[in-house]
This record gives sequence, structure tokens and C-alpha cells, in this order.
Amino acid sequence: MAQRNATRGARAQPLAGVAEDQQVHPFDHDLRAEVRRELAGFLQTKRNEAAQIDPQFVAAVDSLSDFVLGPGKRLRPTFAWWGWRGAGGSPDDPQARAVLRAVSSLELIQACALVHDDLIDHSTTRRGAPTMHVDFAAQHRAAGWLGAPERFGAATAILLGDIALAWADDMLRSSDLWPEQLGRAHVVWQAMRTEVLAGQYLDVITQASGDESPETALRIDRYKTAAYTVERPLHLGAAIAGADSALVHAYRRFGADIGVAFQLRDDLLGMFGDPRVTGKPAGDDLREGKRTLLLAYGLRAADEKRQTGAADLLRGAIGNPQVDENTVTEVRELLIELGAVAEVERRITTLTSSALRSLRAAELAEPAGARLAELAAQATRRVR
Amino acid sequence: MAQRNATRGARAQPLAGVAEDQQVHPFDHDLRAEVRRELAGFLQTKRNEAAQIDPQFVAAVDSLSDFVLGPGKRLRPTFAWWGWRGAGGSPDDPQARAVLRAVSSLELIQACALVHDDLIDHSTTRRGAPTMHVDFAAQHRAAGWLGAPERFGAATAILLGDIALAWADDMLRSSDLWPEQLGRAHVVWQAMRTEVLAGQYLDVITQASGDESPETALRIDRYKTAAYTVERPLHLGAAIAGADSALVHAYRRFGADIGVAFQLRDDLLGMFGDPRVTGKPAGDDLREGKRTLLLAYGLRAADEKRQTGAADLLRGAIGNPQVDENTVTEVRELLIELGAVAEVERRITTLTSSALRSLRAAELAEPAGARLAELAAQATRRVR
Repeated sequence: MAQRNATRGARAQPLAGVAEDQQVHPFDHDLRAEVRRELAGFLQTKRNEAAQIDPQFVAAVDSLSDFVLGPGKRLRPTFAWWGWRGAGGSPDDPQARAVLRAVSSLELIQACALVHDDLIDHSTTRRGAPTMHVDFAAQHRAAGWLGAPERFGAATAILLGDIALAWADDMLRSSDLWPEQLGRAHVVWQAMRTEVLAGQYLDVITQASGDESPETALRIDRYKTAAYTVERPLHLGAAIAGADSALVHAYRRFGADIGVAFQLRDDLLGMFGDPRVTGKPAGDDLREGKRTLLLAYGLRAADEKRQTGAADLLRGAIGNPQVDENTVTEVRELLIELGAVAEVERRITTLTSSALRSLRAAELAEPAGARLAELAAQATRRVR
Repeated sequence: MAQRNATRGARAQPLAGVAEDQQVHPFDHDLRAEVRRELAGFLQTKRNEAAQIDPQFVAAVDSLSDFVLGPGKRLRPTFAWWGWRGAGGSPDDPQARAVLRAVSSLELIQACALVHDDLIDHSTTRRGAPTMHVDFAAQHRAAGWLGAPERFGAATAILLGDIALAWADDMLRSSDLWPEQLGRAHVVWQAMRTEVLAGQYLDVITQASGDESPETALRIDRYKTAAYTVERPLHLGAAIAGADSALVHAYRRFGADIGVAFQLRDDLLGMFGDPRVTGKPAGDDLREGKRTLLLAYGLRAADEKRQTGAADLLRGAIGNPQVDENTVTEVRELLIELGAVAEVERRITTLTSSALRSLRAAELAEPAGARLAELAAQATRRVR
């Protein structure tokens, strides 16, 4: 049953099959907009507090708000919401608004992660717009201020990221969850924050050490993406609902598998995707030296097949900021020829199947099962 | 009564008058060591969790632990502890250990603030040792890793600061405070985190814009130092104890005054202090372009007295990384001649008197009144 829904959901437009039903609650029907509304309300409260401190700080809060309230998939709140729904939570429950607010706070952790990550990676573009540190450096330059614009941009990005991280917590606490719901949520919240920061740290270390093993790439995907994007958000929703350990276990297996698959799809998009769609230049991960599973497979294949030229070209391109469009094209062709792309695609397929098996076994309350299967398909399907 | 104790306390050696008393509870008697012990226990738990993730992450946790457990005045936990004691909290209370753990978590916020601030300021030395980003850059260089060591140092410092900020929260929550104590504590905790980050942000903006007004310098001192170091820690202790609003009000006035005085003393030390005592090169604040009240007074006096040469010398030195020892000496002499040093000293005296008046009016439970007066004196007294 869940499988049939899942298959149908995966082929349908987002939220299709739901929009036809007049009875669908707005929280289910227009979740992204509802999450954005909760964030806007919370950030307005913080803006009022900032106004008690200093007008220049208000301007900083406005920059952060623009970033948080801009376009976004709201993936983490979405998984957390459907995790709660699948564990029996109902949008008609008097606590539903509190749950919505609680899961929306995940977007503030994400804001910190993105702002700090972009600074760490020296990324200049996100969602087609300048990254936070680049934007603030430009403001500094335009104002003709003292000191180096880049240092100013870095300083403000560090502090705005810190503010987002602190406020994520404030928003969770102010969500009006009952104390026992909040207590259960916090256990997951704490694990998740540590895992994503550990994943980011391992990512930085691995880029520096040049570790080429697929196992390391997968471990980073596990913590930096899967735990943080799918597994723990689902777990958070389940914890708020007071779900039993069998459901939590199923969610976590589903989340770990689909989360890694999602990262592998993202890695492929980073190398082969259309910059107009991804919002960032193709080959950025390559120049930045990200140790993706795709590159790990490519390097291993080149070594095993003793294709020294191919291996040298790959190793010379990874982490080389000077890599031009032609080299990116060569790397793309090599990754296809070496079978790395096909191997990653197979892995995505395997992980997705395994994830959907875990989901079916969980026999979730509908429509959560169908919706999670649909999200899994959306997050991992080919887009080329 | 409180006044007499305060005066005696201020003149006595640290903890003198207490050590002679056999009945003094270890929490009161050796607070710094007790705080360190709580931090060590908490960080060990986190280390065990990190070991489930990756050995390289364990190494990162160890670096953070070394930083947190190294020498430190533990000022914020100390003010929070005595804030609780002064509001009637007793070290013999069964909840005393939980309170100790809760106030110790302030040191993890401080770890984030220091690590991120040192990166923002490009400071190379703290407490006589390399700062976190410098240390990690050196490890990168020694290992002969890929990419620029400085970028690696910055990336790890950003992430370790984030981890400290997240874990501060985890430690507060795991402190075994009762839910109602935790609820009251959290209101203060949230305000404090926002205030310190706002203060740091204003500091960065002011360095960039070159705002020379004493009012701006004082506003930064108010949020970046006073609220965060004294006022809110005392308020936190009072909130845990369930103190009435009169006591909270007195604490906050005392904390705001003594906290600014403390920052002004620190500014003087930054310019005139012995690097062997302060642990950082003299004139660092000057080179970094910190807009201290000391410099604001100096510039205002130079302008008012139409000492163009003096004003030019000061403006040319502020934020100039090339400033040498001779120029630092010239700036020192100018700040004395212009009366800026005397004016800051007067301000410290006024603030300290006003703080002590607020404290006396509060009629705290002893020995908290005496101890807080002693801390006020220690934090603001001349050390040359």
C-alpha cells in the first residue's frame, strides 16, 4: 500500500494527489509556506529585541532574515514534520502549531551551516546570489570603510552564523512544545548538532589530508548530510510524537540511506548540473577539493586500470582553484569513462531501494508514508 | 555590614578570610577548580560520543578540551555562582552541584567567543599560547597537507567555535537543574547570547566605519563585556535561585557598571600592560583598530585642543598593522598627556563606586556580598 502510494507520489508533481482533496490541512498542503511564516514571526520578535540594542544590529538581523526567508526547500523541517505525522501526529492536534514551530527552527541551524560553510569554502554564490561574506565585503567596499573588505565580510559571516545557531535553540525552546516533548526533542537535537559539525570538520580535514578512500567520503556524507538532513529530522519528529523504538529505528535507517543518496545526487549535480538550476558554478566542488564519493570512485578506477594520465588529470584538478571550464569538461568525461558516474548512480539506486524497504516495513500512518516516499524520490531522482 | 565586608574583601588576598574558616564548602572555597572539574566531566562525555563518530573528530574534541580546561579566570561561572549564593542559594543544597554545572557551561560560550574573536581579529597569541586558528594552521603546515594552512586554521576555528557554542547549551540542559530552574535560567541565557553576539558585531562594524564617539565605545563595552561577563551571569544565578525583581535589578546595575569598568581596565592593560602578564603583545588592540573608550577620549581631547599632530598620529596608528614598538610608546605618552588615561581611570573609579553602592543596597546573603565586592575590586584594580 505504502509502496503503491510511493510510486504514484514519485511520478506525480509535488503535492499532487493532495491538492485535489479539499480536506487537506494547510500545514500538510503548504508546509513550506507555513515554515516560512513561523520563521518570519520568530525573526520579527528577535528584530524587536535587536532594536533595544542598536540600529546597526537591527540591520544585521535583517540581513540574516533575508537569507533565512529567501528561497529554500525547507527539507529538514519537512522531514521532521512528516516524521511527526507518520508517528501519529495530526495537523488538527492543538499542539500541531507548536510542532510546526519546533521543526521550523531547523532552518536556523541550516542558516548557520550554510553561512559558515560558504565562508570555509570561499564560495561566492549561493542560490544564484552572493554568499553572506561576499555580500558584506561588497557593502564594506561600497561604503569605503576602513580595513580589508574580505576581513569584514568574514567577521560578519562568522557572527551572523553564530547568531543563527544560538537562535535556532531559542526558537525550539519558544515553540510551546510541552516540557516532555521538548525533553525528548532535545536529545535528538543535541545529537544532530554534534553530528553535522563533526561531518563538516571531517570534510575540512579530509580535503586537507587528501584522503581518497570511498569509505571516508561515505562517512562524511553520513554525518554531514544524511544524519543532519533526513535521519535526525525524522527522528526529531518521532521523538516529539513519542514514537516507539521500532519506528525510530526504521526512520533512522530510511534517513541514513536516503540522506546519503541525496548527497550523491548533489555531488553529481555539482559536477554535471546546470548552473542556472543549481545556483552555483559547475565544478566548484572540484576546485574546492571536496572529496566526493564520485571522485573517490574515479581515482580508484583510474589506479586499478593503471590509467596514469587519467589519475594525474583528476588529482591535478581536485582542489585546484585555477581549473577552467575545459578541464571541468575533461574531468566530466573521465568520470563517465572510468565508470564512476555509473557506480554512483547504482549506489543511489541501491540506497533508495533499501530506504523505501525500511519505510514500507514501518507501516506509517498515511499520508506520511506516501509523502516520505515522494520526498525520497524527489531528492534523489535524476534531473538531467 | 555588607559595606564593611566589601571593603575588607577588596583589600584582602583572593579568598583570604575564607581559607581560615574550616567550615567553608569546597564549592565556595575552590570554585575555579570545581568549575574546571565539571567542564572536564562534561567534555569527557562528549569525547565518548565523538569516539562513536570518528577518531579525527576525537582529536578535535581534545583540542577544544585543552583550550577550555587551560588556565582561565572562570569569571562568568564565578559571578553566576555568587549571584545564586547571594540570592539565598546554599552550597549544602542538594541542587548545588546542578547549579555549579549549569554556571560552568558559561565557559563554553566563552570558548566560542574567544576562538571566533581571535580569528576575526587575526590574533596570534592568547594566554601566551598560539590561538586556535594559528595552532591548527601550524599543524597543517607540519603535516604538509594540501591547500593553504591559514585557510585550514580558519575553517577548524570556525567549526570548533560552533561546537563550543552548541555544547554550552547541551551542558546547561544536562546540568540536572529542575525544569522550573532551567526555564528561568533560559530566559537570561538567551538574552545574554544575543547581547554578546550583538556586542561583537557592533565592535566589528565600528572598527570598519571608524566611529570615534565615546558613546559607541561605551555601548560596545556594555554589550560585549558588561552584560556578558557580569550582569547576565549574576542574573542567571539569581534566576536559578528564583530571586525577586529588586535583587535582579540591583545585580544588573552592579554588573553593568562593574563590567564596563572591567573592560576599561582591560583596555588600559592592552595599551600599557606587561605582555608577560597579559599574555598578548602590547598594542595589539591598537593595531587591530579596536575603538576603545581610551582612544575615543584621546581623539576627542586632541581635536578639542587642536593638537593636529597628536590627532594625526593617533588616527594613523589605529588599525595600522605596521605600527611598531616606538609608535606604541608615542601613542602611550600622548594618551597620558591628553588626559585620556586619567579620564578612563576616573570613569573606572566612578563606575566601581556606583557598582558597590548597588551591591550594598541589595543586602545580599553573606559571604556573597563580600565576595562580589572583592571580585569587583580584583577585576578593576590597577595592576601596574
